[in-house]
Amino acid sequence: MRVSCLQENLAKGLSIVSRAVSTRSTLPVLGNILLEARNNQLRLAATNLEIGINCWIGAKVEDEGAITVPARLLSEFVNSLPPERIDMELSVRTQTLHLHCARYDANMKGIDAADFPILPTADDPQGDASSQVETLEGVRIELAAPGLRKMIDQVIFAASTDESRPTLTGVEVNFVPEADGTRLTMAATDGYRLSIRSVLLAGTQPEGAQREPIKVIVPARSLGELARISADADEEQPVQVLVTQARNQILFKLRGKSESRGSFQQVELISQLIDARFPDYRAIIPKSYNTRTVVDTAQFLKAVRVAYLFARDNANIVRLGVTPGPGGQEGGQLRLTATSAEMGDSVNEIDALVEGEELEIAFDARFLIDVLSQIDQPQVVLETTQSTRPGTIRPLGMGEEEFLHVVMPMHPPR
Amino acid sequence: MRVSCLQENLAKGLSIVSRAVSTRSTLPVLGNILLEARNNQLRLAATNLEIGINCWIGAKVEDEGAITVPARLLSEFVNSLPPERIDMELSVRTQTLHLHCARYDANMKGIDAADFPILPTADDPQGDASSQVETLEGVRIELAAPGLRKMIDQVIFAASTDESRPTLTGVEVNFVPEADGTRLTMAATDGYRLSIRSVLLAGTQPEGAQREPIKVIVPARSLGELARISADADEEQPVQVLVTQARNQILFKLRGKSESRGSFQQVELISQLIDARFPDYRAIIPKSYNTRTVVDTAQFLKAVRVAYLFARDNANIVRLGVTPGPGGQEGGQLRLTATSAEMGDSVNEIDALVEGEELEIAFDARFLIDVLSQIDQPQVVLETTQSTRPGTIRPLGMGEEEFLHVVMPMHPPR
Repeated sequence: MRVSCLQENLAKGLSIVSRAVSTRSTLPVLGNILLEARNNQLRLAATNLEIGINCWIGAKVEDEGAITVPARLLSEFVNSLPPERIDMELSVRTQTLHLHCARYDANMKGIDAADFPILPTADDPQGDASSQVETLEGVRIELAAPGLRKMIDQVIFAASTDESRPTLTGVEVNFVPEADGTRLTMAATDGYRLSIRSVLLAGTQPEGAQREPIKVIVPARSLGELARISADADEEQPVQVLVTQARNQILFKLRGKSESRGSFQQVELISQLIDARFPDYRAIIPKSYNTRTVVDTAQFLKAVRVAYLFARDNANIVRLGVTPGPGGQEGGQLRLTATSAEMGDSVNEIDALVEGEELEIAFDARFLIDVLSQIDQPQVVLETTQSTRPGTIRPLGMGEEEFLHVVMPMHPPR
Repeated sequence: MRVSCLQENLAKGLSIVSRAVSTRSTLPVLGNILLEARNNQLRLAATNLEIGINCWIGAKVEDEGAITVPARLLSEFVNSLPPERIDMELSVRTQTLHLHCARYDANMKGIDAADFPILPTADDPQGDASSQVETLEGVRIELAAPGLRKMIDQVIFAASTDESRPTLTGVEVNFVPEADGTRLTMAATDGYRLSIRSVLLAGTQPEGAQREPIKVIVPARSLGELARISADADEEQPVQVLVTQARNQILFKLRGKSESRGSFQQVELISQLIDARFPDYRAIIPKSYNTRTVVDTAQFLKAVRVAYLFARDNANIVRLGVTPGPGGQEGGQLRLTATSAEMGDSVNEIDALVEGEELEIAFDARFLIDVLSQIDQPQVVLETTQSTRPGTIRPLGMGEEEFLHVVMPMHPPR
């Protein structure tokens, strides 16, 4: 293997695939990154066997070949180099990769590329068969979704982190063909709260694309990585999705931002799917409300954060008191109270537009912080029925079918 | 106690005194901050019994009084408030402090101020006796030292962090009166390296100031806190130093930046002194050199950081090879090599002006990173005799009497 590339492109590619590197595996090769030079591209790949990432960057290949080298050493070394050309050459006999850039030279001891797990790819972009890629077959969908990253961030925080209930560590992702496009819906719940985000992807699907509804459970961590990679991808280009026929793997393919420095050409994220039945969350969505409260998002978030300073000592309980204005919606109040037996208590009021009855309800302060942090719109709507029933939160101006967050109340001792 | 102050000033004061709060003490009151309102000033104070900090901020006092409240809760609460006026009122019966700012209200349960240790002060700035301050008597020195912070940072990293050798966790601070001022010298060593910084403070000392040399050992951590506070202090105003007659405590007094918002009026840092004999470091300073190498500071630091990626696997050993140019000083080379049995190796060359003999010498990469990170001058001088003898490093343009770093070589297996 003999290959040259720009330091900025290699650094960017390494930062993307590094997230899939296994940090504590008994298999040393999973702590390495695969470098494969072929057809004037350099492929970087890493996997922890749950998530795999392939990243192709522009390169000049003199001799094709592949090797795996320690991820942390390679990343830190490349990040330390000046923004110039890096020349790499593999000594096959010793499996040592020689790197040269400006006046820096290094030799890194690698592990044979043949020992690296074979990562599937959507379609081999290098055009011919290789020992290190396997083309994935399945149903293809195109997501022309510039807001994909935000959408993911508004859902994944509600997934459970409790590995003993694996189903709830996933996000239900649902693609439903409609007359004028495909509706994409994501939902996550940890049993105490539920976040649902839905968007209609306009346009027709490409030739051979899926026409049946597809419903899968994707690990929240995988979607989190997808959101992170989207930040560096070209938002103009659709994200291609491929779900295997066996419904055991999903692949997302993103294109990089043209040929600019510090960019990749293409990234593929491959994730295992969770084979389970997602709970029927529609059943717990409240059908009506008695009190509808509209408040400033930033003020509400700040008030909850202050209340949390006291609430964290007391099971995170923050009490919300909603009071309608003297006549009509204007002049209403949302009052937040938190009490700690040891530390003291806090009270904070914010202006609100209140429609309906006066109400007292208690929530977990962290849950409110989580959802309010993900809302960019200036105002939010809180809808409640009674203090023992779940409340709903959504940005003002977005319909329930677009974004809905349901949160269970707490029952604080009076 | 009834007192009002600006949120920014209280937040700044709390950030300063918080560093002296004891994080794990069996004495709960040491986890609190003392608030004392007197003579239209609010004093904040915290101590972990090794270091104590007093900070006075501007305030409007309606009723004098004092209380201690939990440091973390108070700091986080005040930091969350809008930049407006904060009103505080103590309920003496319940020892609860009520805080009000904008539409936020809180009650914090405190501990009686009488339970807080008495912190000494240079001179009671509030002009009369108080139960919570004790005036410290001793020798006074004035430091008109705008570069004090940098000076401290260039020395303290060389102190030991090994508590089993307490003497070396301190910095020897030496004040020697000279004809045209006072010479201040700081030195720290952990037995493997030595950092000495010295400056002549011009001007005469105030009436009653010390005329005898004074030599004390100040904990490196205390000087680190002093450096941090200096960043917020008025650099035009001299720092006042007071050493007790018993040579067991030192006090530094700094003035804040005028009456700007987010500022303090005055801060005092009180530290215990280390009662020991500092090693005679002058004996280990090399008297001559065989090789004198001048290199670019930033290039040298970058090269050591790259070498460290490989060296960290091998006792941090980085080898320096110095080669003079073919004729005269120009065209010389400094070559850095690091080898890891498991990872591989790296070589990097930088241009150097070399005077004297060719030399190979090995150092601990972290030690080189520590000292080079603290040098702002564009070039450094490395002077060496032979590979088993210590080398010296200092900024080009600074005399040995101003800044000298001595570092022991390592003996790597060949």
